[in-house]
Amino acid sequence: MEINGVEIEDTFAEAFGIKVSRVLVTAATKKLARIAATEATGYGTSVIGCPAEAGIDSYVPPEETPDGRPGYTIMICNPSKKNLDHELLERVGMGILTAPTTAVFDALEDEDEKLNIGFKLKFFGDGYEKELEIEGRKIHSIPIMSGDFLIESELGIKDGVAGGNFFIMGDSQASALLAAQAAVDAIEVVEGTITPFPGGVVASGSKVGSNKYKFLNASTNEKMCVTLKDEVEGSEIPENVNGVYEIVIDGVNEEAVREAMKEGIKAACTVPGIIKISAGNYGGNLGAYKIKLHELF
Amino acid sequence: MEINGVEIEDTFAEAFGIKVSRVLVTAATKKLARIAATEATGYGTSVIGCPAEAGIDSYVPPEETPDGRPGYTIMICNPSKKNLDHELLERVGMGILTAPTTAVFDALEDEDEKLNIGFKLKFFGDGYEKELEIEGRKIHSIPIMSGDFLIESELGIKDGVAGGNFFIMGDSQASALLAAQAAVDAIEVVEGTITPFPGGVVASGSKVGSNKYKFLNASTNEKMCVTLKDEVEGSEIPENVNGVYEIVIDGVNEEAVREAMKEGIKAACTVPGIIKISAGNYGGNLGAYKIKLHELF
Amino acid sequence: MEINGVEIEDTFAEAFGIKVSRVLVTAATKKLARIAATEATGYGTSVIGCPAEAGIDSYVPPEETPDGRPGYTIMICNPSKKNLDHELLERVGMGILTAPTTAVFDALEDEDEKLNIGFKLKFFGDGYEKELEIEGRKIHSIPIMSGDFLIESELGIKDGVAGGNFFIMGDSQASALLAAQAAVDAIEVVEGTITPFPGGVVASGSKVGSNKYKFLNASTNEKMCVTLKDEVEGSEIPENVNGVYEIVIDGVNEEAVREAMKEGIKAACTVPGIIKISAGNYGGNLGAYKIKLHELF
Amino acid sequence: MEINGVEIEDTFAEAFGIKVSRVLVTAATKKLARIAATEATGYGTSVIGCPAEAGIDSYVPPEETPDGRPGYTIMICNPSKKNLDHELLERVGMGILTAPTTAVFDALEDEDEKLNIGFKLKFFGDGYEKELEIEGRKIHSIPIMSGDFLIESELGIKDGVAGGNFFIMGDSQASALLAAQAAVDAIEVVEGTITPFPGGVVASGSKVGSNKYKFLNASTNEKMCVTLKDEVEGSEIPENVNGVYEIVIDGVNEEAVREAMKEGIKAACTVPGIIKISAGNYGGNLGAYKIKLHELF
Repeated sequence: MEINGVEIEDTFAEAFGIKVSRVLVTAATKKLARIAATEATGYGTSVIGCPAEAGIDSYVPPEETPDGRPGYTIMICNPSKKNLDHELLERVGMGILTAPTTAVFDALEDEDEKLNIGFKLKFFGDGYEKELEIEGRKIHSIPIMSGDFLIESELGIKDGVAGGNFFIMGDSQASALLAAQAAVDAIEVVEGTITPFPGGVVASGSKVGSNKYKFLNASTNEKMCVTLKDEVEGSEIPENVNGVYEIVIDGVNEEAVREAMKEGIKAACTVPGIIKISAGNYGGNLGAYKIKLHELF
Repeated sequence: MEINGVEIEDTFAEAFGIKVSRVLVTAATKKLARIAATEATGYGTSVIGCPAEAGIDSYVPPEETPDGRPGYTIMICNPSKKNLDHELLERVGMGILTAPTTAVFDALEDEDEKLNIGFKLKFFGDGYEKELEIEGRKIHSIPIMSGDFLIESELGIKDGVAGGNFFIMGDSQASALLAAQAAVDAIEVVEGTITPFPGGVVASGSKVGSNKYKFLNASTNEKMCVTLKDEVEGSEIPENVNGVYEIVIDGVNEEAVREAMKEGIKAACTVPGIIKISAGNYGGNLGAYKIKLHELF
Repeated sequence: MEINGVEIEDTFAEAFGIKVSRVLVTAATKKLARIAATEATGYGTSVIGCPAEAGIDSYVPPEETPDGRPGYTIMICNPSKKNLDHELLERVGMGILTAPTTAVFDALEDEDEKLNIGFKLKFFGDGYEKELEIEGRKIHSIPIMSGDFLIESELGIKDGVAGGNFFIMGDSQASALLAAQAAVDAIEVVEGTITPFPGGVVASGSKVGSNKYKFLNASTNEKMCVTLKDEVEGSEIPENVNGVYEIVIDGVNEEAVREAMKEGIKAACTVPGIIKISAGNYGGNLGAYKIKLHELF
Repeated sequence: MEINGVEIEDTFAEAFGIKVSRVLVTAATKKLARIAATEATGYGTSVIGCPAEAGIDSYVPPEETPDGRPGYTIMICNPSKKNLDHELLERVGMGILTAPTTAVFDALEDEDEKLNIGFKLKFFGDGYEKELEIEGRKIHSIPIMSGDFLIESELGIKDGVAGGNFFIMGDSQASALLAAQAAVDAIEVVEGTITPFPGGVVASGSKVGSNKYKFLNASTNEKMCVTLKDEVEGSEIPENVNGVYEIVIDGVNEEAVREAMKEGIKAACTVPGIIKISAGNYGGNLGAYKIKLHELF
């Protein structure tokens, strides 16, 4: 199968279950909302080593938000409900409540349950907090130095999908990188998905465990490393490929992840020098979801 | 004392000891270096609730870096050496190694000791890692999908200073915010300092403990809340003040923090509508450093 | 009339006819498209002194563009068809054709006529240019150093509206500025409109002619200057207003301009410290359009 | 000659005389200064079709500016003194005076003469303008709606250099583009120089005149077009080159342009996939300056 002359390998991405939250951060301006959303979702590429997987989902213009101000939806994800509760509380409390002019609303549809994050944060008001209603939502208004911080009392969580992915293989490192950036731009508008790695792009795909160092949970995927293609037996890097980047996607459900993979792959294939699109899996035995690339189109 | 017509209160900022690291992140372009630096320093406003205090220190142009590429110095801080070791390893490993085209070098002068972060990360190479020397530095080259990631073997840490601060009080919330942004711009070029809160600005200064909720470690500083100025007895908000933002500074030493406070306050006082500059302290009994505002000038 | 406690003055904006074009600039990534769009629309705030009025209209994600790449619609406007033809040719030729990875498509609906800008630019190919068709559009492919530049043969123009406007009056300069930025964020998503001034905001509204210097076509609107409110007889600045910014809007038709004014004003009124919204007119005798603020809501 | 394995061709860049101005734009914040500087320097890639060549030179932090606020130096250039006078007046008047919170200072050293741009703009004040002195500079303070706009009375101009340049040839279009961006990042900190094309990069180098269309002053440089390398006789594109971008530099003097070329080339050579660096000339008969690449190092 080919798209725009680029080979789409007949393989599948193996994805996993994860618990996801999705909240809307609004602020006086788009820029201020972005600052808060960025702080709250940093240090959140993969739960291999980060306390959560987190990222900015989509921009929401003023006319579509509960308070008429610009905002961004963000997603914070963790396999454990207890850890997700902690991460939501701290990332919102330390990264958004502390940011100029912000407010927080639940933005998850079809939630499995709700966590009382807003309720917990209201105690920061030390008795001066108040309760409001905005568009039918129960809101806590917490006085802070610069004004009042508003947050919805409960934030939804649900079972979502982590680790949707594809590989972009290019004739140069820069071609693959440019295509990865194009893919991230395309996925940005797919609601309910994030690309949690830096700038949305993974430079260092890994395999489970290690061949040489038994104490490691994850190590470099040497068969996909371009600088090892002549050194490693069984390298999966074609002779004319000199750069590989991976896009990893977390989503509110499998459908959203599939849509993001589809739009991302199409966008990557618009960049000159892209040779092949592949995907990462573990033989199909580890993850709950197997997303075949050829079935996306 | 007045600067540009703005009252500088005769008070002091109370700051604390913290262990700091400072590393240089380079990449193919300034933008790519910024992406990695941002990811690695996110979710790092205050150790009250974040696993570290972290931020971008300064931009370093290509001609001044070991590999001739643009870079940013970042600082990652934690009171505990053990926690700092963990945070450095994970923030570099998950936020920079995973980012396109990056390399990492130690950028701390006068370190107390070195942590073998690069040495630990090299095992990700699963035996394919190599050792190089760049400008006398011992470097590990780790093959990753997109190329090779370079990191200096050891990264320095030292006893630094956390919680340098000042308050900006304005005739409106927006005046105080604009002045806070001006202060952050001025501090950006003071090497060896970060302003770890979102966009460098704190919207929600806190006090230790809580009057009403005994289970809390920190709660809103009600005497500095503008919306409570007519409600709270002993409010410290002047009648004509309607917005307060705080700048918090971590630095490699007291001198750097003082310089940042000085430049930040001067910059804040260039914005129309700023009424008064103050600072936060706990009576002087908690922190090791007392920085008097009047002695800065 | 009040919105969110802000007085909306019972007055009208006086707007003028202008010829407008609207083109879509795509590129390999959103960032690259933005760079080209910014260059092509610079030095384009007002035809009082600039060769055109120009700005970025809206972002168009990859899935909605003819070539599947991210893009921005831009508008270039001039009262004279001949001047508009010149400006389109040069701004596209010098600012977009010269920019990395770009392509240009017509994005104007209901055009009055088409200008053969793409046809003229194809000669730059010196005989090596080719003709293509993309989604039914006639496209010239022009070989340039970095690859091929694609441009639609003809670009539409039509009679549009210039000078839609409103004034934002705040208790401080910074309040008015923050509200102006919020207004620009809201207008950004109103398709078919631009806010051509720097960052979308006008700091220096003017009146026609000058009282003192007869050789001037335009001079400061002294009755709206905050620093002159106690000096100028007949000042229109309320006592509690210390900052005024204006938003100026050009659009493809009156309806689009009205929608932009409506959304912009609503957004401005979400910012604390905004006292009043007004609008600029010349008594109603100069412009073809009179847009009453109260009729927008 | 090779740098980091990249061939530096034994050729020269041919550059021309041009009249240059250099002004400092300050504002309340770095971001606001950037907005004004960007507007004033847009539509300014080449005097082949733009009314000026213009760009942002360097960032100047608050502690180094006359008014203690962050700023950017910009350069505006034109071969004709009369045209430069017009462009300075309009770009400052329409792009900076109209922008929030700005001020303008002369930033040219060793000027040949001064133009009374500030003096001319003061009449916009319609009699309410005042005169100040800041650090020995004669300043006009002009009341505008949002406050007062400050501008130095006279702005210097001098004979500078236009068209310093080099070509970056890469194994892919994306490699050449990434290297071009790295070069622009390196040149950004060379004071007294600009890279006036979009994002600093030229996608479409041209030759003087046209072989086929005699009415053209400039047409595509077909021998440097990658997509024509198998079609054009005498193509200068090596077989393994698939992308070429050019960097064009204007500077206050030849020394600054040489420094920018040197730093830019060094930076381009850090990017994987770069094959060769060349430069553009017209045989040496047209321009006053011949800058040999090999003599830069």
